[in-house]
Amino acid sequence: MAADSVGIVAPRLESFEDPLILETGRILPRFDLMIETYGTLNADASNAILICHALSGHHHAAGYYAGETKAGWWDSCIGPNKAIDTNLFFVVALNNIGGCNGSTGPTSPNPENDNKPYGPDFPLVTVRDWVNVQARLADRLGIGIWHAVVGGSLGGMQALQWAVDYPQRLKNCAIIASTPKLSAQNIAFNEVARQSILSDPDFHAGRYLEQQTFPKRGLILARMVGHITYLSEEAMKEKFGRDLKSGNFLYGYDVEFQVESYLRYQGEQFSRNFDANTYLIMTKALDYFDPARDHDSKLNQALAPATCRFLIVSFTTDWRFAPSRSQEIVDALITNRQPVSYIDVDAPQGHDSFLFPIPRYVNTLRGFLGQPSGHNLGQNVTKNAPELGTIDQNQTATVAGAAR
Amino acid sequence: MAADSVGIVAPRLESFEDPLILETGRILPRFDLMIETYGTLNADASNAILICHALSGHHHAAGYYAGETKAGWWDSCIGPNKAIDTNLFFVVALNNIGGCNGSTGPTSPNPENDNKPYGPDFPLVTVRDWVNVQARLADRLGIGIWHAVVGGSLGGMQALQWAVDYPQRLKNCAIIASTPKLSAQNIAFNEVARQSILSDPDFHAGRYLEQQTFPKRGLILARMVGHITYLSEEAMKEKFGRDLKSGNFLYGYDVEFQVESYLRYQGEQFSRNFDANTYLIMTKALDYFDPARDHDSKLNQALAPATCRFLIVSFTTDWRFAPSRSQEIVDALITNRQPVSYIDVDAPQGHDSFLFPIPRYVNTLRGFLGQPSGHNLGQNVTKNAPELGTIDQNQTATVAGAAR
Repeated sequence: MAADSVGIVAPRLESFEDPLILETGRILPRFDLMIETYGTLNADASNAILICHALSGHHHAAGYYAGETKAGWWDSCIGPNKAIDTNLFFVVALNNIGGCNGSTGPTSPNPENDNKPYGPDFPLVTVRDWVNVQARLADRLGIGIWHAVVGGSLGGMQALQWAVDYPQRLKNCAIIASTPKLSAQNIAFNEVARQSILSDPDFHAGRYLEQQTFPKRGLILARMVGHITYLSEEAMKEKFGRDLKSGNFLYGYDVEFQVESYLRYQGEQFSRNFDANTYLIMTKALDYFDPARDHDSKLNQALAPATCRFLIVSFTTDWRFAPSRSQEIVDALITNRQPVSYIDVDAPQGHDSFLFPIPRYVNTLRGFLGQPSGHNLGQNVTKNAPELGTIDQNQTATVAGAAR
Repeated sequence: MAADSVGIVAPRLESFEDPLILETGRILPRFDLMIETYGTLNADASNAILICHALSGHHHAAGYYAGETKAGWWDSCIGPNKAIDTNLFFVVALNNIGGCNGSTGPTSPNPENDNKPYGPDFPLVTVRDWVNVQARLADRLGIGIWHAVVGGSLGGMQALQWAVDYPQRLKNCAIIASTPKLSAQNIAFNEVARQSILSDPDFHAGRYLEQQTFPKRGLILARMVGHITYLSEEAMKEKFGRDLKSGNFLYGYDVEFQVESYLRYQGEQFSRNFDANTYLIMTKALDYFDPARDHDSKLNQALAPATCRFLIVSFTTDWRFAPSRSQEIVDALITNRQPVSYIDVDAPQGHDSFLFPIPRYVNTLRGFLGQPSGHNLGQNVTKNAPELGTIDQNQTATVAGAAR
């Protein structure tokens, strides 16, 4: 195990028995969250960082499960001395509701239907719903104020929503490879993915689990088309070019080009591990996200309530959420005279760049996060927090400047 | 009927009874071509222009069928006084073999299998095969030398292949919104489209017609994903934005955004009129096209045999075949000191731009085509041509300069 790994980790389930009223008006009577934490929460609970996941992410963000060799999805950024330094910070990752990795979602038993899987009866959820759920999780963990909320892509939308909906509960907000709302083209790609699933005869109107099957073909297609949008044209060229699998044209429909082989494999793997109803829910949450919608499309008005510092990161070859989309957020914050730093990172990996430990990107993120700085907002917002412990005055002083 | 319309037109079938040896080595014992012509072939057959179609195009390029109101697919460019002026030129359009609009293809009877539809037994064809077939058609029509071969997208690939394979048989070559070969990303999108069709249970290994069905869902998905690549992000934004069909979120999987409605409708319409096996064949022809492949990837070496004048046109917002791809062709021709003109046209419609009568584009095309200029290569390459008639000396003189 590398010295900068969080090492062996285990997930745990947190159950919430109070009903949750969703943005649609529908109610979840109860829900579970599968979570992981890394590092140690400090005495005044001022060192907690929330990691929000993207479309197919989950709670397993760093480290290894016992007996497994595959690290968590953001292991490149989370660990001792890594950009999100678990020597300094208490890092919380969760699987959002509607997910399929242990939190309550379409594959969970529906108490209102004989505990059969929810399937299509699981309500649609929004980014705002997820943030509300994450706030409940913060309460449960005794975290009144996050040192930071951090997310890439759909995760970045959650970080932005936190800044707007709970301005007093986070100090720093890092929004990476994200956008203030999907474009028509983004929605169009999501729609192709949804239609792939919905039109698969094995979808059975979403009740495929009750039929002991699942829309494998639809999921494969959905992931294939998604995957194209995650990679830059450049990265694809670099990775596969027009290389032929067998050296010669086969003149048939078997795999001929390496890129075909790669996409089919990725789609195949994904289809075994991901729930189709969850895929539909995630794409809809993406489509719906648009904080400016209730503000006459004025993003700066929507972001006005935020009081945290912002870091916005985009990547030059990201064509799913291009740098110009990140810059819309930056522009709105500057208009509002809100504290924002922005970097557009030169990286060839397209949208996927946010998962890679690109030096300029991770160093900036590390610098932005600084060190835990203690709280000065009193106990009213941290009522569930443990008693304050001793604070190292020197460290606090250093940090107060760095983390302003 | 507008004065610049070719008016009412009718297709006609040309049958070819000699076997055709394909690039794969497979043989078509005979084939039919569905064609249309507009304008009049002049006495020395020096005013003929060949129009090559793209993925879903066909022979009906201009004018109207009796009783119908929808014009041919390139009516904006072909007609009296239009960019491809039928007062001056004899314009030939055809449906390529492997197509599904009347020429021999997968829906045609297979003489080697009791005249059941070819289906998956129809051989894969290449751009080079199409050009060979078009050369036979030229022979049949008495056209030894084309004044020009013109095509957009996959049609542009055919025009380029003409210049390389039959350098003595065309004077001008217009390659619009095309590329010297697909990128890995282009192939990836084609692969998603193919897998949509191949994985549809109604595909029946390509023998769907014998089962009185067709892979409708697969065709819809294939066209939806294709369509996204034909439009620019800008055009989609302009056309649909994030407009909701009903004004409010429905929180369901019915059509919510206008762009979803548009894509579903386009896919639906397409699925009724296009054959799935043809779609597969067309995408493979696109993937295979790569004239530099046998020249150590040196495009200029591949293009060296060409003797015609070239016009290359790209469009600023085309991200399927971006301007940089057209510029690869331009660069190769310049390296070879071959005559080439290039314009990158500012247009918002993405890849589809080539179908619109954008002034700079159509005026350049008109100027490039000039006027018929007579032949000075002797009868050896025009052995099937009718006797030469009288040539207006003034007109020829004018043209000789303009069309050099």
